Amino acid sequence: MAEKIDEKKVTPRSQDFAAWYNDLIIRAELADYSPVRGCIVFRPDGFAIWEHLRDELDRRIKKTGARNAYFPLFIPQSFLQKEAQHVEGFAPEVAVVTHGGGKELEEPLIVRPTSETIINHMFAQWIHSHRDLPLMVNQWCNVVRWELRTRPFLRTSEFLWQEGHTAHATREEAERETLTMLEVYRGFVEDYLAIPLVYGRKSAAERFPGAEETYTIEGLMPDGRALQCGTSHYLGQNFAKAFEIRFLDETNQLQHPHQTSWGVSTRLLGAIVMAHGDDQGLRLPPAVASTQVVIVPIWRKAEEGENVLVAARSIRHSLEQAGVRVRLDEREGLTPGFKFNDWEMRGVPLRIEIGPRDVAAGEVVMARRDIAGPPGKSKAPIAQAAERSTAVLAEIQKNLYQQAKAVADQNTRRFDDYGKLSAQMQGEGGGGLADIHWCGNPECETKIREETRATCRAIPLNQDGAPGKCIVCGESAKERAFFAKAY
Amino acid sequence: MAEKIDEKKVTPRSQDFAAWYNDLIIRAELADYSPVRGCIVFRPDGFAIWEHLRDELDRRIKKTGARNAYFPLFIPQSFLQKEAQHVEGFAPEVAVVTHGGGKELEEPLIVRPTSETIINHMFAQWIHSHRDLPLMVNQWCNVVRWELRTRPFLRTSEFLWQEGHTAHATREEAERETLTMLEVYRGFVEDYLAIPLVYGRKSAAERFPGAEETYTIEGLMPDGRALQCGTSHYLGQNFAKAFEIRFLDETNQLQHPHQTSWGVSTRLLGAIVMAHGDDQGLRLPPAVASTQVVIVPIWRKAEEGENVLVAARSIRHSLEQAGVRVRLDEREGLTPGFKFNDWEMRGVPLRIEIGPRDVAAGEVVMARRDIAGPPGKSKAPIAQAAERSTAVLAEIQKNLYQQAKAVADQNTRRFDDYGKLSAQMQGEGGGGLADIHWCGNPECETKIREETRATCRAIPLNQDGAPGKCIVCGESAKERAFFAKAY
Repeated sequence: MAEKIDEKKVTPRSQDFAAWYNDLIIRAELADYSPVRGCIVFRPDGFAIWEHLRDELDRRIKKTGARNAYFPLFIPQSFLQKEAQHVEGFAPEVAVVTHGGGKELEEPLIVRPTSETIINHMFAQWIHSHRDLPLMVNQWCNVVRWELRTRPFLRTSEFLWQEGHTAHATREEAERETLTMLEVYRGFVEDYLAIPLVYGRKSAAERFPGAEETYTIEGLMPDGRALQCGTSHYLGQNFAKAFEIRFLDETNQLQHPHQTSWGVSTRLLGAIVMAHGDDQGLRLPPAVASTQVVIVPIWRKAEEGENVLVAARSIRHSLEQAGVRVRLDEREGLTPGFKFNDWEMRGVPLRIEIGPRDVAAGEVVMARRDIAGPPGKSKAPIAQAAERSTAVLAEIQKNLYQQAKAVADQNTRRFDDYGKLSAQMQGEGGGGLADIHWCGNPECETKIREETRATCRAIPLNQDGAPGKCIVCGESAKERAFFAKAY
Repeated sequence: MAEKIDEKKVTPRSQDFAAWYNDLIIRAELADYSPVRGCIVFRPDGFAIWEHLRDELDRRIKKTGARNAYFPLFIPQSFLQKEAQHVEGFAPEVAVVTHGGGKELEEPLIVRPTSETIINHMFAQWIHSHRDLPLMVNQWCNVVRWELRTRPFLRTSEFLWQEGHTAHATREEAERETLTMLEVYRGFVEDYLAIPLVYGRKSAAERFPGAEETYTIEGLMPDGRALQCGTSHYLGQNFAKAFEIRFLDETNQLQHPHQTSWGVSTRLLGAIVMAHGDDQGLRLPPAVASTQVVIVPIWRKAEEGENVLVAARSIRHSLEQAGVRVRLDEREGLTPGFKFNDWEMRGVPLRIEIGPRDVAAGEVVMARRDIAGPPGKSKAPIAQAAERSTAVLAEIQKNLYQQAKAVADQNTRRFDDYGKLSAQMQGEGGGGLADIHWCGNPECETKIREETRATCRAIPLNQDGAPGKCIVCGESAKERAFFAKAY
């Protein structure tokens, strides 16, 4: 193992962000490339992060009243065509099953790129009366979008996600649900993944195919590019009409329900890697780390080793009792230095070192992953190791957010001058997030995109409405918007 | 809702077991038919059972040392062909993706029917030394097998399952792992799903394609047919050779590892429905019931209602505090009788009834779903409702197992005479489980299958070896085997 790790150095982040990202994912054994074009393998260390993340988000989603269900992987090709914008958006990137059981199928089946069509077909069977509403389901599943250029976690042909689908009696209720889920996502990603966000509406050009309004949470990554981390769509009655979903309202009138859909995906794993990682490897927020604390015992002579291990095991026990996910690294034949590097690479938030002198003094050394070198080290009495660990993990969770926020804030700029915006986007460093007045005209948006490659990431909600001038055309603009180059 | 339920009566189980089964799944809203051939929709009430079951089994699997991972949905067609028996077994029933992103693929992709091939391709990248072993991964995912005749949960074109895949340095260790997982499955299905089992080896004819030995747990359903509930395979070095997995052992020799795979699927939901359900509906084991206790408040006059609801809510609170999954049915405009039927149909293990006179007396009525009518009813002081509920739920869990065991035992028979075996299998009642001496000759097995439609379900482990004569050919037989008609 020592040899393997030494062989494969990680490209420094400052040198090549993209290469650093790819190296880190392989080296930390989060994922591996697969023999299937554009598909990755989620290795146990990567999948464990997804499991923590999924379980917590699942709890938050269920609290809103949605329940989990599971709909077929395959969608009849004709279903996709029922909503005009939807088919236009997804048809070019679907995988198609043409044969089953040795025979050519009468109608080809699409491997779901998203499930609005088949879920709304079922909703039409289940919704008859206003008493059947709201209907709120969520599913955790795999989806397939045939992507030309793929990157682990960020853009893969198959990915895992959750997709929520709801139907409501009124427009107001559906709009409220859309914003409720946006807030669930925002809180979850900021608190649990420690990733700072901006959020708001999408422009018409960036909307989900078939939606009337799309809301988004966006994280500005340290390379100055924005990553869409989750979206929540108000679908209006578009799918209800296409799939003939009708209910009798309280006055006995037939109505189409108003709908929403919302989702986040394994892309969030990429966000965690990028937002927090450094040249030494991953830095995992304690909330999603499978191993929150690693104990590394240190000794030279065999007789010292026994004492150290006894103490280390007792510390492990006390941390387990305190509900901390702890691991004791008893591997033989590896130096402490090697182990330190290994666990730093894997992003373990807190390391406890214990040697013979520590045992004699009744204390341990704690080394934080979020603060490099001596400033991140402190001593703690063995008897307080569990209590201190819990406290320090909570600090690390907050500090990772603060560190990421500082980087994002540094890279967020207000522009009133198109030339400066353009120079910034074309300069080094990815461009960052530009906060600009935009008149809302798609032509101005297109000009920015074509000339600077920045796109409209989000139009913040609840703006103060202070009037301004569109950075492109100079016409009056009621709103500000965030533009950035995006993943 | 009242109208809908009255319209759709459930076929009595004694009249037509298959129709009863299908009716129950639809009426209890566990699943629905989908527009995709052979695929069902798991509705929230059905999927919630799967979630409970999955989470508990996942904990038990992780305790054995396996970790979760996720491998691609698609498998290059050429991979399937690398193991001769494997391709023979699965090629006829695969779904094939021929087009992606609007273009015909150079090599068609198979939608995974099981993942031995792609996982072992990856194992070959990860396994180099004996220090990389054992390698134990598990994945929860969807798989597709193009089935001609499908039944909800029992046999569907797409289903959900977990598949574990392990590689070991020695044959002994791999064989031990195969049996460890068989025992994990047995304990899980018997304890948690309250379904009695027989278990053992499969005959060569019934082995997993590519395995050297397949072990199985089998449940005898009340209609006298056996349901395979889980399998664990010792794969030998077949896949290791096909996918060129090699490791340097401790003496620096290149070796192929010995492997296992094992899985259970959403078929277990069908087992729960069949093993426990009755003409009134589902009967869910408390361990997997989303709602373990339902409280039905009963009153006529509005002024009584308030008192009853206050008491009912306080009982709900005390049950929640005790960790019981409880629901208070406050729906208006429905009679208590309708609610009783509704919750019986949905299989809630325990019902608490409370009316004005109960409130005055400080007590509630508890009605068990596993014991029909007055014998299943008892009174309990309100102050002890939580404690009593917990105790009664534990009793129900055990009793459902005992009831199912009694039915299965009644339907399990030893035969020494082929004529009697044949008559039993061709008579009414599905045939039951036949415990017979079999010489092990595939010809005798074939004769039984062709003449009686019974197949070898399991050859029990650790037999006493008492000699006997094969029920078919009369030659000496060392082992007894269970034969039955199977799902």
